[in-house]
Amino acid sequence: MKATIKDVAKLAGVSFKTVSRVINREPSVGDELKERVWAAAKELNYQPNISARQLRGASSFIAFIYDNPNSHYVIEMQHGLLAECRAQGYELLIHPLSAGSGDIMADLEQLLSTGHIAGLVLTPPFSENPALIDALRQRQLHFVRIVSASDDPAESEPCIYVDDYQAAFDITDYLAGLGHRRIAFLGGEDIHRSSVARRDGYLAALQQNGIAVDQALIVPGEFNFDSGAERTRRLLALQPVPTAIFAANDEIAAGALFSARIHQVAVPQELSIVGFEDSPFSRQTWPKLTTAHQPNADIAGCAASHLIASIRASRNGSPGSGTDQALPANGFRPQLVVRDSTCPAPQ
Amino acid sequence: MKATIKDVAKLAGVSFKTVSRVINREPSVGDELKERVWAAAKELNYQPNISARQLRGASSFIAFIYDNPNSHYVIEMQHGLLAECRAQGYELLIHPLSAGSGDIMADLEQLLSTGHIAGLVLTPPFSENPALIDALRQRQLHFVRIVSASDDPAESEPCIYVDDYQAAFDITDYLAGLGHRRIAFLGGEDIHRSSVARRDGYLAALQQNGIAVDQALIVPGEFNFDSGAERTRRLLALQPVPTAIFAANDEIAAGALFSARIHQVAVPQELSIVGFEDSPFSRQTWPKLTTAHQPNADIAGCAASHLIASIRASRNGSPGSGTDQALPANGFRPQLVVRDSTCPAPQ
Repeated sequence: MKATIKDVAKLAGVSFKTVSRVINREPSVGDELKERVWAAAKELNYQPNISARQLRGASSFIAFIYDNPNSHYVIEMQHGLLAECRAQGYELLIHPLSAGSGDIMADLEQLLSTGHIAGLVLTPPFSENPALIDALRQRQLHFVRIVSASDDPAESEPCIYVDDYQAAFDITDYLAGLGHRRIAFLGGEDIHRSSVARRDGYLAALQQNGIAVDQALIVPGEFNFDSGAERTRRLLALQPVPTAIFAANDEIAAGALFSARIHQVAVPQELSIVGFEDSPFSRQTWPKLTTAHQPNADIAGCAASHLIASIRASRNGSPGSGTDQALPANGFRPQLVVRDSTCPAPQ
Repeated sequence: MKATIKDVAKLAGVSFKTVSRVINREPSVGDELKERVWAAAKELNYQPNISARQLRGASSFIAFIYDNPNSHYVIEMQHGLLAECRAQGYELLIHPLSAGSGDIMADLEQLLSTGHIAGLVLTPPFSENPALIDALRQRQLHFVRIVSASDDPAESEPCIYVDDYQAAFDITDYLAGLGHRRIAFLGGEDIHRSSVARRDGYLAALQQNGIAVDQALIVPGEFNFDSGAERTRRLLALQPVPTAIFAANDEIAAGALFSARIHQVAVPQELSIVGFEDSPFSRQTWPKLTTAHQPNADIAGCAASHLIASIRASRNGSPGSGTDQALPANGFRPQLVVRDSTCPAPQ
């Protein structure tokens, strides 16, 4: 017969409620008690996930809210979220939305009307939409935001920061260090703060290296392959041509690579290309892409961890307060990964 | 004040239960009644999705069960599932499992213990695991299976068929028609029936074209880039070398392309390469890949549609019977897409 939570409580000599707290990894249980409960659970071959759900009642689902056409980003985020949700007894629901559509909050209300959603993980651009964040705060929902920023101590709910500015500075500074002076920037949609931050980092590094800004080399567009290919075609018609392209994500960079091939421009000998993200296919292009490694799965896992901690703190009657669990750091800085698509500027 | 389902029933002059049936798109409601209910709902600006969920009670979640490292496959399946779930008022939960792990049914029991799962969408290899299917049948769960097969009228639950055999035959026959006689086959893991079916289709087309089978050209391996690159390296060391490679998915094909470049073998002049799936990156390689278009999103949408129909039929008290809704066809045959990675065999 399967062990129940009551069996665990009896063997450990503690209350039902204490077992519940330990299994739910809630704060305010001392180490000695925790050990006793886990030892009893192990002894009885008790399966904590099932009961964690039963104890929590209905709200055992975390919803991932996103609007991103980049498959690798979505898949890697899901990996990170799933790993953390599994470890903590939650299931993951995916709920993509169109950021351009009218009433995002009405759609979220429908989702929440199921009554089983414990919290939301918000990615850009939703996480960077002040009106939506205000509405969610008023609704007193648990949510965590992944945002492009260095840090912001004023934020009241858990925020996970990705320092796109500094990573873009590093990339551009690296290209300048290779002797490049005509460095183009292919951004994404400005509704994503990351696109703006990457452009700002690029501009700051140009300035630091004494390179004048040429607006013709900053070509607005979208975070996808076709937009990268089309904009590179236009860049290659300029006189003098750029010797390097910093693409704001790997898909744009893959498009740039494709366009360079069509126009018989050698990469990297005549044209260096850098991406951003370190998606799997950046290692599968020819030549392999120099890029910045954005640890999406780690970022997502960290977000889920902070979200679940805030849900537990609130259930424990201390909303907003910290927990006795060590949470992972919430700031990430993508790191330059040099591969084969960059080299010193041609003479 | 928001309109309730009672307001709709009153205005339409029908029972609460009839409104529920119409909103849940259940069968057994006549067209005239349906129109009256929807007209009343529209008049009152009634939001059907919320109440559809309330009426259905807790089970408004469909779970997608998969074990597939191919990002594009997972993303496209999710697209198709999400579109159909949204249209019918369900939310989508994702639940990847490791097919190699011990007790898959125990893990699924944990998922089902949440009490909110209306049905499961099973993809290979789970959908092709007889022991698991038997266990699910005994549990009287709603599920739909996506399997690699031409058709099987004996199946008792909804099955969606993907005809890998015929598509693989078409690809191999196309290569033979270009004059290729040394055609290699790079399969995936045989735990996926699709890998076996594609190899069988390849063998049948060789036979039809009077080409003797050379076992050295059939190299077992995995459905991924690295496995494709490694196996191609070995193929290129053979004497005489193959003039064409049929890779059992696009990732293997991308690996083959990469390996050909490293060994300075011109594609397609010296070596034709064909993939399978028509993933987005098959259009972003250089040269663009010839492949078979596998309509993953359509397959997934069809699966969700059949699953939801079976859930509704059962709730309507007629388990296993048909509905008055027209369901999409449940057989798919991937179609050859000729791009730039194939050409006539070298002399």
